[in-house]
Amino acid sequence: MSQSGSTSTSGVSSSSLLVVGSVAFDTVETRADKRVEVLGGAASYVAVAAGFLAPSPVRLGGVVGDDFPAEHTALLERQRVDLGGLERVKGRTFRWSGVYSADFMTRTTLDTQLNVFQDFNPKLPPSWTASDYVFLANIDPVLQLSVLEQAARPKFVACDTMNFWISGKRAELLRLLERVDMLLLNDEEARQLSGETSLPAAARAIRAMGPHAVVIKRGDAGALLFHEAGVFAAPAFPIENVVDPTGAGDSFAGGFMGWIARIGNTTPQTIRTAMILGSTLASFCVEDFSLDRFRRLDLGEIRERFAAFADLVHFDKIKL
Amino acid sequence: MSQSGSTSTSGVSSSSLLVVGSVAFDTVETRADKRVEVLGGAASYVAVAAGFLAPSPVRLGGVVGDDFPAEHTALLERQRVDLGGLERVKGRTFRWSGVYSADFMTRTTLDTQLNVFQDFNPKLPPSWTASDYVFLANIDPVLQLSVLEQAARPKFVACDTMNFWISGKRAELLRLLERVDMLLLNDEEARQLSGETSLPAAARAIRAMGPHAVVIKRGDAGALLFHEAGVFAAPAFPIENVVDPTGAGDSFAGGFMGWIARIGNTTPQTIRTAMILGSTLASFCVEDFSLDRFRRLDLGEIRERFAAFADLVHFDKIKL
Repeated sequence: MSQSGSTSTSGVSSSSLLVVGSVAFDTVETRADKRVEVLGGAASYVAVAAGFLAPSPVRLGGVVGDDFPAEHTALLERQRVDLGGLERVKGRTFRWSGVYSADFMTRTTLDTQLNVFQDFNPKLPPSWTASDYVFLANIDPVLQLSVLEQAARPKFVACDTMNFWISGKRAELLRLLERVDMLLLNDEEARQLSGETSLPAAARAIRAMGPHAVVIKRGDAGALLFHEAGVFAAPAFPIENVVDPTGAGDSFAGGFMGWIARIGNTTPQTIRTAMILGSTLASFCVEDFSLDRFRRLDLGEIRERFAAFADLVHFDKIKL
Repeated sequence: MSQSGSTSTSGVSSSSLLVVGSVAFDTVETRADKRVEVLGGAASYVAVAAGFLAPSPVRLGGVVGDDFPAEHTALLERQRVDLGGLERVKGRTFRWSGVYSADFMTRTTLDTQLNVFQDFNPKLPPSWTASDYVFLANIDPVLQLSVLEQAARPKFVACDTMNFWISGKRAELLRLLERVDMLLLNDEEARQLSGETSLPAAARAIRAMGPHAVVIKRGDAGALLFHEAGVFAAPAFPIENVVDPTGAGDSFAGGFMGWIARIGNTTPQTIRTAMILGSTLASFCVEDFSLDRFRRLDLGEIRERFAAFADLVHFDKIKL
């Protein structure tokens, strides 16, 4: 990890953040309610969450169909997302549909229509190839690698993946992992990728594949960071009325990346704070469907919940 | 919760701690190995874990058969457990046998033989009825209540329970809960008892049943405390080589109770520290079978791991 930064005197860097991944229409049913074809997709959540913290509009690389409404474009732009790399092609936007169990422990995918995403081949606008921070949301590792090949010396690259690629495109994924600084994945994926059952052992095995840092996301049990400076546990904020967990992990990634782009370094201290801001953004995400909670979220609320996180885990030193 | 304490000038109180529950022979198989008829039982774990912190030997109320060897008695006494209330009756000691899945996610009970526990009817030695702190480990709530009826004005009473009593002796359990300060239970039990799926909602419902404080134990996802001062999240320490999780929850309870007995109060600060010391003792417990890790544990290691917990969750304040 690069520890040099371009921090200005205000403490906010001039770093740029690039996010590449899916933009989708989601149909989601939870115990709270149901929404049909609302704005979703990993990259949407990452970029919008990052937009609250990043020093400049977040560059979103992806593809949508000609059915993608101006209303969504306007929302993303209002949320500080730069759509200069969002291709619009003939056809239908990627669609996903799923239902959550009442306790939110299991999610069943009812339908996936790749549509225009089927032929997605990310091409970065020339001015974006020099992005400082890069997040590769969960897509085919071949495409994630292709983005990296277009990016000129980013300071820090993080990526997500999923079971489908771990089993189906393992060789390609391993090639990608050699080139990323940090991998985010959930506990089951960490076990699948590493073949280890204990999470510390899984993280060690994955770090040996390339990433200096591994973040294991555990839903409402929080997230664990394993990196050269040891281990850090970020709790999930206890939310009484979860409405829709879709995008929580991506919002975590967005809060994380937005913060390191803002600070302009990846020191252990910055990374820890980024983990908590990731958890903070994730905790807001689940309070409503789609990106709806982010539409009415402000920095004051983020500040308050960050402080609540500090209180959540605070305990005094003791003499023993 | 009483917030008055009998703290001496050294910072260590003269409070007494009483633990009532099962003492057993466990036969356990995990991915690491197998042990046959080793010392176990909830009260054994609670008392031995508490013994590292409590200001005086921990009073253990329970029953064993005439097959209980002097070796176990000697071990418990060496670990600062006062056996003045451990009945020894004719017959066989309680036996439990179980096997864990390779990922420790599920535990299958193979056999339970109540034996002398079948007719257990706890009777406190007269000198123990004035115990300051009382922990009622997981036994029939009727017996837990009977202990409380013998106890003269304890400062703080905590209890554990399980699915079997929640469904089978609900009325008795509810009568007990009206009289305890704190209930410890796992997430599934919290959902079962409250009928709520979200843990904050479950905790609120359970607090309305009587206990000021509820601790929801979540295994390797840590524990959540809900009480009048808000919510506190104690992480589980990431242990790479878990050998046997049996007794981890009870060791948590022991570390917790041992600390509040030592400090002699239950202020929010003391309770938070107690949560971390509970997690600390639990993290050692899983490193070996039975009470074997505790046999070679010293205060220096507890101090070190407590400091590691502080580092595990530490992050800096930020300006946002």
